[in-house]
Amino acid sequence: MKKIAILGSTGSIGTQTLEVVENNGDIQVEALSANGNVDLLEKQARKFKPSVIAVFREDAAKELKERLKDMNIRIVTGMDGLIEIATLPETDILVTAIVGMIGILPTIEAIKAGKDIALANKETLVTAGHIIMPLAERMGVQILPVDSEHSAIFQALHGEDRGGIEKILITASGGPFRGKNRAELENVQVEDALKHPNWSMGQKITIDSATLVNKGLEVMEAKWLFGVDLDRIQVVVQPKSIIHSMVEFKDGAVIAQLGTPDMKLPIQYALYYPERRYLPGDRLDFWKLKEITFEKPDTDTFLGLPLAFQAARTGGSMPTVFNAANERAVSKFLHRKIRFLDIYDIISDAMEHHKVIPNPSIEEILAAEQATYERIESRW
Amino acid sequence: MKKIAILGSTGSIGTQTLEVVENNGDIQVEALSANGNVDLLEKQARKFKPSVIAVFREDAAKELKERLKDMNIRIVTGMDGLIEIATLPETDILVTAIVGMIGILPTIEAIKAGKDIALANKETLVTAGHIIMPLAERMGVQILPVDSEHSAIFQALHGEDRGGIEKILITASGGPFRGKNRAELENVQVEDALKHPNWSMGQKITIDSATLVNKGLEVMEAKWLFGVDLDRIQVVVQPKSIIHSMVEFKDGAVIAQLGTPDMKLPIQYALYYPERRYLPGDRLDFWKLKEITFEKPDTDTFLGLPLAFQAARTGGSMPTVFNAANERAVSKFLHRKIRFLDIYDIISDAMEHHKVIPNPSIEEILAAEQATYERIESRW
Repeated sequence: MKKIAILGSTGSIGTQTLEVVENNGDIQVEALSANGNVDLLEKQARKFKPSVIAVFREDAAKELKERLKDMNIRIVTGMDGLIEIATLPETDILVTAIVGMIGILPTIEAIKAGKDIALANKETLVTAGHIIMPLAERMGVQILPVDSEHSAIFQALHGEDRGGIEKILITASGGPFRGKNRAELENVQVEDALKHPNWSMGQKITIDSATLVNKGLEVMEAKWLFGVDLDRIQVVVQPKSIIHSMVEFKDGAVIAQLGTPDMKLPIQYALYYPERRYLPGDRLDFWKLKEITFEKPDTDTFLGLPLAFQAARTGGSMPTVFNAANERAVSKFLHRKIRFLDIYDIISDAMEHHKVIPNPSIEEILAAEQATYERIESRW
Repeated sequence: MKKIAILGSTGSIGTQTLEVVENNGDIQVEALSANGNVDLLEKQARKFKPSVIAVFREDAAKELKERLKDMNIRIVTGMDGLIEIATLPETDILVTAIVGMIGILPTIEAIKAGKDIALANKETLVTAGHIIMPLAERMGVQILPVDSEHSAIFQALHGEDRGGIEKILITASGGPFRGKNRAELENVQVEDALKHPNWSMGQKITIDSATLVNKGLEVMEAKWLFGVDLDRIQVVVQPKSIIHSMVEFKDGAVIAQLGTPDMKLPIQYALYYPERRYLPGDRLDFWKLKEITFEKPDTDTFLGLPLAFQAARTGGSMPTVFNAANERAVSKFLHRKIRFLDIYDIISDAMEHHKVIPNPSIEEILAAEQATYERIESRW
């Protein structure tokens, strides 16, 4: 029986991972973790009976311990706790469904401990791809992407020689503001930005879809995951999110993965790779689908994409700054402290004023993040 | 160096196979063959320097021998000649680009001699799939599809467990008469039927595209090639022929192969499988493509498809009758002896009056073909 640990089991990907586990019935969840959602952790603990739970916040950990005193579950806490569950001797796969830079250290420790990584944490590769990918290769562990675009590319590449890749085509819905120009985006509100046309996701990633920052982060991840140069990565707007992404090969053949928008597919694919199993849910019906449309992304309006390419081309610590600035800017937007287009200004400003560290260590990455936060707090 | 023989080197697929060989420069063409196009055979012989050429027609063989007396090339003739080049000890792959039932015997002998088959001859699997596929499996040879739809499916399945197939989605352009009803097809002319919207092909296959008989034959081939039941094969009209076909897996993921309409891609893929090589030619540009549209095929008007499904469900010798009746009907249409819709009537009539032989031998298949021809000649 496969054994997994989940970093971030109470979030959107975490809960869907547990649904996949429940549907299949042949994976043992050895460990759960969350920041502090004690109610949900308690429910998950009673259903999946893990041996350990990491609760990041001390107070929440204490409360969960009290609530679960009838069960034989160890409760650990803080970064040490996350690292402990990431490296449990009995697990095969670590699902990194946690959001933010907090996922990086546990992921590195998990790779060092020989765990395959079902990767849903974007920051890991965006900021530390130059550390993670060589380490994974050295340790012989698999990095199994858990988001629809990278999973689609991973599926398209299955069985193929990666030397045959000509181009990676990442599809983008274009978000709720597709077709609008900058003037029209001046006064958009949080509620407007949270209306994603196809996917139901967390708030932060939904805003990132509206700015196309999310697509920019995916471009950076794809570069690391699939070992391709940035000029071989093209973003194609495909508003209905039916084609989840594509690969063009040297011979001109394009292999695409299509499907209904359901995160359980990439989650299950990662957990059982390379096996495909039945997954309940809607299927595409091409007799009714009518059409799939394509557009060039509007990079004059949606600066998330060109800024991401710029950060990725610069490399080193710059992607960290891009990501940290965006994270803080989105938080301010969600708290109605700034306007939508200010997100781009904050990212630009942070990138302009950052002195790049080539090939940064984890400590330097975390320091660059901190410095970015501080700059933004002092100015906005 | 890979060595190949080509059955039907002067036809559309044959000449494009030679283009692929020329572009790559590392395949030796050991044998060419044709019915009787001496001019083209001579040119091909001087360029590719095969050791043997099979010319089906005696008179043409004699002329070619005269023309090539300065070269050290053996000329063989008739069915024995085809079988000889199909089974040459030095070849690795037989490309069966010949049209018609004439391809079956040489293909069987090639499989028995352990050759991989790059299969472009539709009749082989349509009429004798029940003999060919088990034989190929027993001999451990690969049947490598050389047409855009089956190659697309083959590419989509590469690396996948075939047990994971839920459905095969064969795309169809719909042909030049897509959208027309039966009344509008009453008086269409040969010239109209030869205007294929996307592909430049031989006359017979272009008419078969207009009737959707071609798609019906592809359904039958897919059933044998990929070992799926007919009710797991769905035809989807996709007028621009951008998606060449798709596979839906158990988990709901659909893998599709897309590309510009260029037969050299499936030819090259078959010759070098599983390696992908650079292939000169146009590439899809999704920023300019705008859209891919889908429709349900109109099976009330285009009876080629429902008749094919009926023949395939009946099985045994019925697909042979479907194919033979169509072959003769198309020939009569091209010679302006019958009207377009008569093609369906001829196929229907032949199928209605055929007494099915389950699991027919090659002799019984050829006899069923002959009986079908005779019935049609006596009645139309």
